[in-house]
Amino acid sequence: MSRRLRFRRREILLLPEKRAGGSLSRRLLLRALLVFAFAGGVAHTAFAQTDPLPSWNDGAVKKSITDFVARVTTQGGPDFVPPAERIATFDNDGTLWPEQPIYFQGAFAFDRVKAIAPKNPAWKTQQPFKAVLENDMKTLFASGEKGLVAIAVATHAGMPVEEFTKTVLDWISTARHPRFNRPYTDLVYQPMQELLAYLRANGFKTFIVSGGGIEFMRPWTEKVYGIPPEQVVGSSGVVKFQIGADGKPVLMKEAKVEFIDDGPGKPVGINRFIGRRPILAFGNSDGDLQMLQYTMAGTGPRLALYVHHDDAEREYAYDRNSHIGKLDKGLDEARAKSWPVISMKRDWKAIFPFQR
Amino acid sequence: MSRRLRFRRREILLLPEKRAGGSLSRRLLLRALLVFAFAGGVAHTAFAQTDPLPSWNDGAVKKSITDFVARVTTQGGPDFVPPAERIATFDNDGTLWPEQPIYFQGAFAFDRVKAIAPKNPAWKTQQPFKAVLENDMKTLFASGEKGLVAIAVATHAGMPVEEFTKTVLDWISTARHPRFNRPYTDLVYQPMQELLAYLRANGFKTFIVSGGGIEFMRPWTEKVYGIPPEQVVGSSGVVKFQIGADGKPVLMKEAKVEFIDDGPGKPVGINRFIGRRPILAFGNSDGDLQMLQYTMAGTGPRLALYVHHDDAEREYAYDRNSHIGKLDKGLDEARAKSWPVISMKRDWKAIFPFQR
Repeated sequence: MSRRLRFRRREILLLPEKRAGGSLSRRLLLRALLVFAFAGGVAHTAFAQTDPLPSWNDGAVKKSITDFVARVTTQGGPDFVPPAERIATFDNDGTLWPEQPIYFQGAFAFDRVKAIAPKNPAWKTQQPFKAVLENDMKTLFASGEKGLVAIAVATHAGMPVEEFTKTVLDWISTARHPRFNRPYTDLVYQPMQELLAYLRANGFKTFIVSGGGIEFMRPWTEKVYGIPPEQVVGSSGVVKFQIGADGKPVLMKEAKVEFIDDGPGKPVGINRFIGRRPILAFGNSDGDLQMLQYTMAGTGPRLALYVHHDDAEREYAYDRNSHIGKLDKGLDEARAKSWPVISMKRDWKAIFPFQR
Repeated sequence: MSRRLRFRRREILLLPEKRAGGSLSRRLLLRALLVFAFAGGVAHTAFAQTDPLPSWNDGAVKKSITDFVARVTTQGGPDFVPPAERIATFDNDGTLWPEQPIYFQGAFAFDRVKAIAPKNPAWKTQQPFKAVLENDMKTLFASGEKGLVAIAVATHAGMPVEEFTKTVLDWISTARHPRFNRPYTDLVYQPMQELLAYLRANGFKTFIVSGGGIEFMRPWTEKVYGIPPEQVVGSSGVVKFQIGADGKPVLMKEAKVEFIDDGPGKPVGINRFIGRRPILAFGNSDGDLQMLQYTMAGTGPRLALYVHHDDAEREYAYDRNSHIGKLDKGLDEARAKSWPVISMKRDWKAIFPFQR
């Protein structure tokens, strides 16, 4: 029961008979009206209590979401969308959880390099591994795409899918974010968790569409976001079917990129995995721009949303000047096309679950 | 109400008082017992009425399915599987609908060649198109993979995904099967429709995993099988994101194979699209063998099923000697490993919905 409701009940209980004045019947009428008001209060308060987005501050952005959901779920309304077509796609890094100080999958890769370094003694003197082992990010990033691919291959390929899944689950249950000193999965954005649940409660199917590795995300997305593996779209390496020495079939991860689910790859990934154009899409960078464009280019009601990281105190503030890069066109287009831009500072009451 | 139930009620209503004999109380007791028997009859008949697989004849195969579903859905039982993990995958051609006299997608491609031939006058003298236009299947199949790829490219690429979808929907609503003279979607196997619905009613998620084209199946699978596009895995061509001349984003189908979801490609496709090993898989050819092997190699309860086409009268009979080919290893392995082999003749009361 809300504080307000409790207060109203107290008002009724403490109502001095004399304040009502007049005859008994008038007092009874007044009391009856108050009881009705009270009953109305219950209904109203019950609604307020179940605000599906309690970590979102009231305002234009929150209203754009709740209005959209109301429109597409109003049976017989002009904008009604059948549940099967209520597809909502979410970027992951920077949209559902942070992407600073580096993409969390990068942190995983560097931790894996350190974990398997004893089996690779040559890495002590061999770049880019030496840089990782010495936490020398400057040298590492100077090695460019070639260096990062070498690290990805060393940590993500040459093993069965199930073995990789196990290393991901081990890491995600033990590793801690350097600034917040908490498991990475504690850092999922509370308002986005509420939004995912709210959409699902309204018949939406929620998908992750991320530039991140599909095999890196799937082991934990169901537990953390309520999004099952088959609703996770991401970048992938080639996987090959083999019959192992024991006669058992095995899926091996190979050292070859298969699909980059980023930028123009996101609509392609959506078409490939979902086969239906989303009616709602949520991103935070240029890597999400084509997904948002593709979503908005369909017919009927649609909504594109854009997270702007502007809260250095509670999370991070980065706009055009980030090593994450790729933050120019998306934000400009979101503003130009009046897509709701979420200011984390203004629109989110809490950012992380532990801040509630 | 079943005929049997109606008959039992009549028996009760017509029961001559004198036949009951003895005192009133004895007659009342007998009547009460009959009413209980009657009530029992209702329950029993209600159960029989709601047999979820009425087009499956009783026998070992049907029992293997209902026993498996009972085991994995019995909460607290040793073989209980949480709903999220109840993944069931089905081949399409030859498993959910026929694949004779040719794969239906082949019939679509040939019809498309004929439809767009007026815009390609050179085809009158150019193979393999000439063969298609003259219904000369012998010459066509003699053109081998190269010829079939040329036809696939001419009919499946060089257009936006949405335009292709439209051609598929137009075709599937008008084309008719040469033998049965009915729309192809009338030819989905009734017992498989019942099985899909039965599994979904028991918390399974049903997927198609087909060597057929993903963009060919998705436009109609939801309406025909109750399987939404995001639960259809298939072969695919490369798709590219472009911004069209009108400034609108468009996904273009290119003349390049991306993924063949057949044979060893099926477990790879399952891993890519679903990210979870099925616990039940259903196929009918060597192209499904690795999917069945992969399904059975997991831990916990699992079921692989194999359709054997042995009913020339109601459908087709082909075993080792079919132009569809690839029917050797799958059937042998199914028999060797005691996977239930469905004899269409023995196990299916009806094959097509119109035969019920």
